[in-house]
Amino acid sequence: MLRTHNCGELRMDHAGQKITLCGWVQKIRDKGGMIWIDLRDRYGITQLVFDESKTDTSVIGAVRELGREYVIKAEGTVLERYAKNDKIPTGEIEIDVHEIEILNPSILPPFTIEDETDGGDELRMKYRYLDIRRNPVRKSLELRHKMLQQTRQYLDAQNFMEIETPFLIKSTPEGARDFIVPSRVNPGEFYALPQSPQTFKQLLMVSGIDRYFQIVKCFRDEDLRADRQPEFTQIDCEMSFITRDDILNTFEGLVKYLFDRVLNYQLGEVERMSYEHAMRYYGNDKPDTRFEMHFVELNHVAQGKGFNVFDRSELVVGICARGCANFSRKQIDALTDFVKKPQIGAKGLVYVKYNEDETFKSSVDKFYAQEDLKLWANEMNAAPGDLMLVLSGDAGPTRAALSELRLKMGADLNLKDKDEFKALWILDFPLLEWDGESSRYHAMHHPFTSPKPEDTGQLESNPGKVKANAYDLVINGVEIGGGSIRIHDKKLQQKMFDALGFTKEEAEKQFGFLMDAFEYGAPPHGGIAFGFDRLCALFGGSDSIRDYIAFPKNNSGRDTMIDSPSTISQEQLDELGISMKEM
Amino acid sequence: MLRTHNCGELRMDHAGQKITLCGWVQKIRDKGGMIWIDLRDRYGITQLVFDESKTDTSVIGAVRELGREYVIKAEGTVLERYAKNDKIPTGEIEIDVHEIEILNPSILPPFTIEDETDGGDELRMKYRYLDIRRNPVRKSLELRHKMLQQTRQYLDAQNFMEIETPFLIKSTPEGARDFIVPSRVNPGEFYALPQSPQTFKQLLMVSGIDRYFQIVKCFRDEDLRADRQPEFTQIDCEMSFITRDDILNTFEGLVKYLFDRVLNYQLGEVERMSYEHAMRYYGNDKPDTRFEMHFVELNHVAQGKGFNVFDRSELVVGICARGCANFSRKQIDALTDFVKKPQIGAKGLVYVKYNEDETFKSSVDKFYAQEDLKLWANEMNAAPGDLMLVLSGDAGPTRAALSELRLKMGADLNLKDKDEFKALWILDFPLLEWDGESSRYHAMHHPFTSPKPEDTGQLESNPGKVKANAYDLVINGVEIGGGSIRIHDKKLQQKMFDALGFTKEEAEKQFGFLMDAFEYGAPPHGGIAFGFDRLCALFGGSDSIRDYIAFPKNNSGRDTMIDSPSTISQEQLDELGISMKEM
Repeated sequence: MLRTHNCGELRMDHAGQKITLCGWVQKIRDKGGMIWIDLRDRYGITQLVFDESKTDTSVIGAVRELGREYVIKAEGTVLERYAKNDKIPTGEIEIDVHEIEILNPSILPPFTIEDETDGGDELRMKYRYLDIRRNPVRKSLELRHKMLQQTRQYLDAQNFMEIETPFLIKSTPEGARDFIVPSRVNPGEFYALPQSPQTFKQLLMVSGIDRYFQIVKCFRDEDLRADRQPEFTQIDCEMSFITRDDILNTFEGLVKYLFDRVLNYQLGEVERMSYEHAMRYYGNDKPDTRFEMHFVELNHVAQGKGFNVFDRSELVVGICARGCANFSRKQIDALTDFVKKPQIGAKGLVYVKYNEDETFKSSVDKFYAQEDLKLWANEMNAAPGDLMLVLSGDAGPTRAALSELRLKMGADLNLKDKDEFKALWILDFPLLEWDGESSRYHAMHHPFTSPKPEDTGQLESNPGKVKANAYDLVINGVEIGGGSIRIHDKKLQQKMFDALGFTKEEAEKQFGFLMDAFEYGAPPHGGIAFGFDRLCALFGGSDSIRDYIAFPKNNSGRDTMIDSPSTISQEQLDELGISMKEM
Repeated sequence: MLRTHNCGELRMDHAGQKITLCGWVQKIRDKGGMIWIDLRDRYGITQLVFDESKTDTSVIGAVRELGREYVIKAEGTVLERYAKNDKIPTGEIEIDVHEIEILNPSILPPFTIEDETDGGDELRMKYRYLDIRRNPVRKSLELRHKMLQQTRQYLDAQNFMEIETPFLIKSTPEGARDFIVPSRVNPGEFYALPQSPQTFKQLLMVSGIDRYFQIVKCFRDEDLRADRQPEFTQIDCEMSFITRDDILNTFEGLVKYLFDRVLNYQLGEVERMSYEHAMRYYGNDKPDTRFEMHFVELNHVAQGKGFNVFDRSELVVGICARGCANFSRKQIDALTDFVKKPQIGAKGLVYVKYNEDETFKSSVDKFYAQEDLKLWANEMNAAPGDLMLVLSGDAGPTRAALSELRLKMGADLNLKDKDEFKALWILDFPLLEWDGESSRYHAMHHPFTSPKPEDTGQLESNPGKVKANAYDLVINGVEIGGGSIRIHDKKLQQKMFDALGFTKEEAEKQFGFLMDAFEYGAPPHGGIAFGFDRLCALFGGSDSIRDYIAFPKNNSGRDTMIDSPSTISQEQLDELGISMKEM
């Protein structure tokens, strides 16, 4: 090694030892007779000191050539510092340097390599290799490394086999768009990159591998929006001979293990909630349950009192904001403006203040007497000092709008504790969603998800009512994983493809191999996949997955550092037998 | 769980317990009053027994419906067997079954699911999900699983950070052909799939991540030959602030650790041998050193005796096969035929038998007296009873041919012990190879490999003579890994691109980002990559990597199970703005 130690490990115990460090020049302070350098590597910072009166002039000369981000090798003796720095672990010592070597100079970096940098997003992405030198980025990658190791340790200990599935597979356009790869050896034919290893892991179950996992890259050619990446990483798992609850238990076990090992955090009980319940009481299939404020339906107490807006609404529903009766006019107006934004879409907001003196003050006092509003308060479990916020309209959009308001109130009132994690399972999703545009049902999860056994009979007669044996894991309002018990019966799989409007030929061309496999003794099975980038971001306390990906792409799917995608040579196109159309 | 135990774990301790098993019907023996079933899962086989006189007729009825590979669930009581079977771990017990449920029937599989199957290669690939049910295939995948876990454990303990590099990168046609991926969002532009994460891992070193690893899929669009796959897995590693020997020590440590943990085998000292030595004494840069039989050059004792063939040869070189003086005429003829095969390419074979009576008998007795041949024997350290085999001609092809002969002799004489592993490093490869076809130098390793420091000065004046600071790890004649100390200086990197015939523009377009990165304090670094499929095959004692890949492709790059590659829809082509040329 070019060094004897790294820049994070020297302590008072080492005082007097001759050592060699390598690293990057973080900072130079030249006070004439004395020069100090903060030398940085992945492990920390160590202070180098050069005393001009005692040090070889050639060394001092070399030191005076240095600039920020030069890579150097320094030999010296570990000394106790006069002025100790208790902010860094090496703060008790410094290195009296006898010898230095410039391993590589650096031109001036385009932004400062500091925890708080002056570099904007775009610049940092173009020079991502410099961005990664910064502590916050490096720590995010270290967190990811730990998550990777601990995930595999848990699953290995539970007898899951890690099996690599292929990347050059077959295009199955159901779901998102595939990235495709022209085959040179088979002209006119294409591979596709996997959107997930779904069919392969099911085939592994048919193979008798009863517990499979893989941490694997997946690809979706979607129109990108903020915080979506064309390539992303999944923890992908599948099990045989299990019921739904075995899967829930196994994987809440994984998540608890990760919280314990990586964050030293003891995750509490993981609630299990039906999709219907979540939609009705949180307006959302990924509720943030760090705070309550669930929905209270008020139709029976709010309708029939002459307030036309409520009377003609399918649903009148509210939330109770504790201790907010003292909100000012301005604050209430701001909330009204919020719900009326086009992306929220409510027509207006009704508020009822339950004053400390037990009177009510509302925006609908014209229609409701004090004792009417008292009934609302009873429904909502409101107490004096609370503020009730009520929306009305068609059930679906009203719940969706109230969910946004609830999340905003949670944020405004600091009810989303950054250091708390609340996990829950959402269960019993609808199997199919009607898509108006294509006039057909789409699979809400994917076409391999099994209906709940009690609903199977309705798949042909009443497909919209069938529930799926599917589950999502939600933490702090973020969906971090989802899966289902799969269909393992060929006939049922065919019915499912029928319900989704596949012709027999399409089903056969795309998924014939899977239906064939089901004829050779396919075991009952199910599985789950976690969005690993998202899980890392959640653990790291960030909203952005990009921070947890070493080399992310921007919102146009472009890697600005290597400048990709890019044109290729005519020779390459010719070899593949493809040509570009005039655009 | 649908089961209480698996099919591999029940023992005498469990006798009397009520248990439930799930699995596949391996075999049914129906002797009238008694029926036995071998039930199989991933963990083993357990014998089920049904006594017609004591069992519910509905159960017996169900049993008589079963066929091979049906998936069933069986409830019963663990009993001690009368006739124990010591060939399987569950052989002391059997299950007296009260209840069975058919979880899924099976049509007759296209080949038998046995260790020795009647299914040919093609059939087994088409039904790979059934092939994996066979013990040998499942065990290969289990070995691979273990190799994956242990590799990461070793590297994690050594402070290597696992970092995922992108799959959608940029085409850099130097080296093998890239698979390319059209970008829909950026029409006319393409991503490429990585042939290796080479440039990204070097950028990570520039980022200060001083120890990186990844077990990662890589892609090469090559014309396939036996045992090559278009997608393959690498253990990919890189380190900063190291010398070559630090890398050799670290990674022979990894290999020793894997042998110990996975095979409980203690790998001996890992020899270090120069490329020049390997070529001269084994005719091969991946010598199998489980046996000696190294080359002995005989020019000075064999030339000038009137044997024209030798006299006009650049090289006369032989090997000594111990104890083979008694080879028959027929055996010698067979060896002669072997070396004369077009793919070996020798013109003929000279043999010298050193008889037990200390006389010599050779194919060149006309030209050489007994005392001449005694000199050969001295050079070769031959003893009475040995057979000397000698080739001649131009040095390169002659060594290559003799290497083939040496390997054949090693195999014929059983000198390649299947249970022995001999590892060595090959060092100091040439940096560049002249390519006659393109009339330019190619990088023997890749364009980022550093010349040996003492040779750097000759890069422009005498490029063919420059040695690379590169190394390969060879075990039992198989190259399982290779790497190099990298260039970390922009100017040297430019010189290297010049030597390879890149124009400034090409170098800038393809690798500008890397050369830019070198300007911002790139540390000295180097790394290695192991062919993980090959390493698994070596550990498993197989010559074929395909056995160690769950879903391999055939020699036309086709997955016959899912039938990929395949055509895609016109709509998909249109969205990508590409069209197929008439072929």
